[in-house]
Amino acid sequence: MHIPNRLLMGPGPSNVSHSVLDALSQPTIGHLDPAFQTLMEEVKDLMRAAFQTRNEMTFPISAPASLAMEAALVNLLEPGDKAIIAQNGVFGGRMAEIARRAGANVVLLSFDWGKPVCPDTVAETVEMHPDAKLLAFVHAETSTGVRSDAARLCRIAHKAGILSVVDTVTGLGGIPVAVDEWQADVVYSGTQKCLSVPPGLAPITFSARAIATIKARSTPVQSWFCDLNLVLGYWSGTGGRSYHHTAPVNAIYGLHKGLSELADEGLEASWTRHQAMHDRLAAGLADLGLEFLVDEPHRLPQLNTVVVPQGFDEAYVRQQLLQKHDIEIGAGLGDLAGKVWRIGLMGHTARPENVERLLTMLGHVLAEARQQAVA
Amino acid sequence: MHIPNRLLMGPGPSNVSHSVLDALSQPTIGHLDPAFQTLMEEVKDLMRAAFQTRNEMTFPISAPASLAMEAALVNLLEPGDKAIIAQNGVFGGRMAEIARRAGANVVLLSFDWGKPVCPDTVAETVEMHPDAKLLAFVHAETSTGVRSDAARLCRIAHKAGILSVVDTVTGLGGIPVAVDEWQADVVYSGTQKCLSVPPGLAPITFSARAIATIKARSTPVQSWFCDLNLVLGYWSGTGGRSYHHTAPVNAIYGLHKGLSELADEGLEASWTRHQAMHDRLAAGLADLGLEFLVDEPHRLPQLNTVVVPQGFDEAYVRQQLLQKHDIEIGAGLGDLAGKVWRIGLMGHTARPENVERLLTMLGHVLAEARQQAVA
Repeated sequence: MHIPNRLLMGPGPSNVSHSVLDALSQPTIGHLDPAFQTLMEEVKDLMRAAFQTRNEMTFPISAPASLAMEAALVNLLEPGDKAIIAQNGVFGGRMAEIARRAGANVVLLSFDWGKPVCPDTVAETVEMHPDAKLLAFVHAETSTGVRSDAARLCRIAHKAGILSVVDTVTGLGGIPVAVDEWQADVVYSGTQKCLSVPPGLAPITFSARAIATIKARSTPVQSWFCDLNLVLGYWSGTGGRSYHHTAPVNAIYGLHKGLSELADEGLEASWTRHQAMHDRLAAGLADLGLEFLVDEPHRLPQLNTVVVPQGFDEAYVRQQLLQKHDIEIGAGLGDLAGKVWRIGLMGHTARPENVERLLTMLGHVLAEARQQAVA
Repeated sequence: MHIPNRLLMGPGPSNVSHSVLDALSQPTIGHLDPAFQTLMEEVKDLMRAAFQTRNEMTFPISAPASLAMEAALVNLLEPGDKAIIAQNGVFGGRMAEIARRAGANVVLLSFDWGKPVCPDTVAETVEMHPDAKLLAFVHAETSTGVRSDAARLCRIAHKAGILSVVDTVTGLGGIPVAVDEWQADVVYSGTQKCLSVPPGLAPITFSARAIATIKARSTPVQSWFCDLNLVLGYWSGTGGRSYHHTAPVNAIYGLHKGLSELADEGLEASWTRHQAMHDRLAAGLADLGLEFLVDEPHRLPQLNTVVVPQGFDEAYVRQQLLQKHDIEIGAGLGDLAGKVWRIGLMGHTARPENVERLLTMLGHVLAEARQQAVA
């Protein structure tokens, strides 16, 4: 098994610190061991701090973030329920697909890829559908690098008395996520973005309103694995833990360490660092004559979508960076395939030396590619 | 973070070798990196060897084995389909629950806990329900320590022209699993039992018949995350990989190493070792005056259910073993709670020195507990 040392500047995973990698390789213990239960409680506390919430039901789903998306929707939705879903990239579309498979009646609001979700349009739609059960949207669209106004969107939902589901897979740790202040109902993230923990777990938090809605269901949750009523028998601290599934013990060691490092740095310091690295990258990209897909006010600092200049083979540039320079950047996804590169500055990756290295090497590769195009 | 060094002799996780733990802490790389794709192909090959199958569709689900159970059933079953499910412990019951949530019409065959699934009863039932779509059963019941005759049960299903779903979470690597010889259709396992890899992934394999059934569905699979049609876009080697979800990269390093170690030892050698350790344990338990729940021909060597002798506090014994001697053994589950201990001899744990250590310490703890009871 030969694992190369890559600089991970794609849309995730991001680079993982040595201390998190070391944590992963601590000896495995039982998922019901008192020592592991202590660790679970610490992880829940650390996660609450990262999400800025006091929600009791805050824990990691034992699977990648896509399953957290599914868990959020299939727990809240029953067949025939109406769900308003905003789409401005791949992941909003995935939400709609999952909601439909749960038997929901989906009202899909589509926005241009590269633009944020428009709060006015959402407000109008919410008003037109007083029978809707929830509003779901993506706070930080990994496919486009756009930030939507989660505070305002949640406020619209809350005022209308419907639940809000917020995907902040790429947001958490990189930009402010304020679950309680937003009065958001279900918010989930991933480990492999700004938390810089290997992929495989998904932090999620449920408000008391969300829990009450799930408890009041008239049909069982279609997924046994995702059924919050069952999962909480294991993750809830009250009254002893009951076995549901075997938690991914070593992965949780890594998450504990990653969240501890975020707490040590401080949320604000982490946000500031991500923004500073973005500014540095943006200046360097401008020097190279490259343009962003997204207008400045809506850019995610941690996920930069750069328009592939005319005449360049986008895949060739990525391959050269990876094969010659051990730097991974991401391709466009869905409608943006072939049109953009996605440059991640997430978590541990978001450091000056990494930004400089990318800019230098990208400059070399583009110059080479340009010469070839001319020749 | 303080992680104690435990001897893991419960129903899983089992102890993980240093080399597998080291593999986990290799640097994270991208899930679409060519180096990772090579590793994925190797993992698929190693998994085929362990399952004794040539099934192309053999890969690890990015979640614990409970989700593999759900994936097997929700991919094969459509609403209104009839599923014959044999239950002789907790996990057969879970299969039935999942199938019902998928809208299936479940014919549940219940057998005594501690007894194997009776092939004659299954054959009669299959005959009575020619419209059934599948037969599902547990090969190695983790809750009772019983082995059922998977070869014969799969033959019954195959002869009747219905699909077979086999749960061998605790079986794979510890006792023979012969997917192709059995003509089994969907077989899944876990990593944290006889493969001695940390929990969090679930090896699964699908026959060509199973794939054809899934492709011929008239309704979408209710779970987006588990939908094999989508998952295979990532795990299938043909025609380039497409993004589905972010694979748990580091966990897969560990699985690769664990499966490599199994291949190095050889399947037969591993089965022989598990049986030899069971024989040694059984002799020692007899010396201590303890009895098995399961009749000898149906015992799983790797999962030993021992009847708690009258007058003993079963939880006290487990706690003493854990707190004083760093040995974890398992409690009874479901109907067997309070009535049995479950002693695992799985994977890396199944070594003579571990069996001796458990027998010695269990002897001490029982003697102490007996004195207290007398006093």
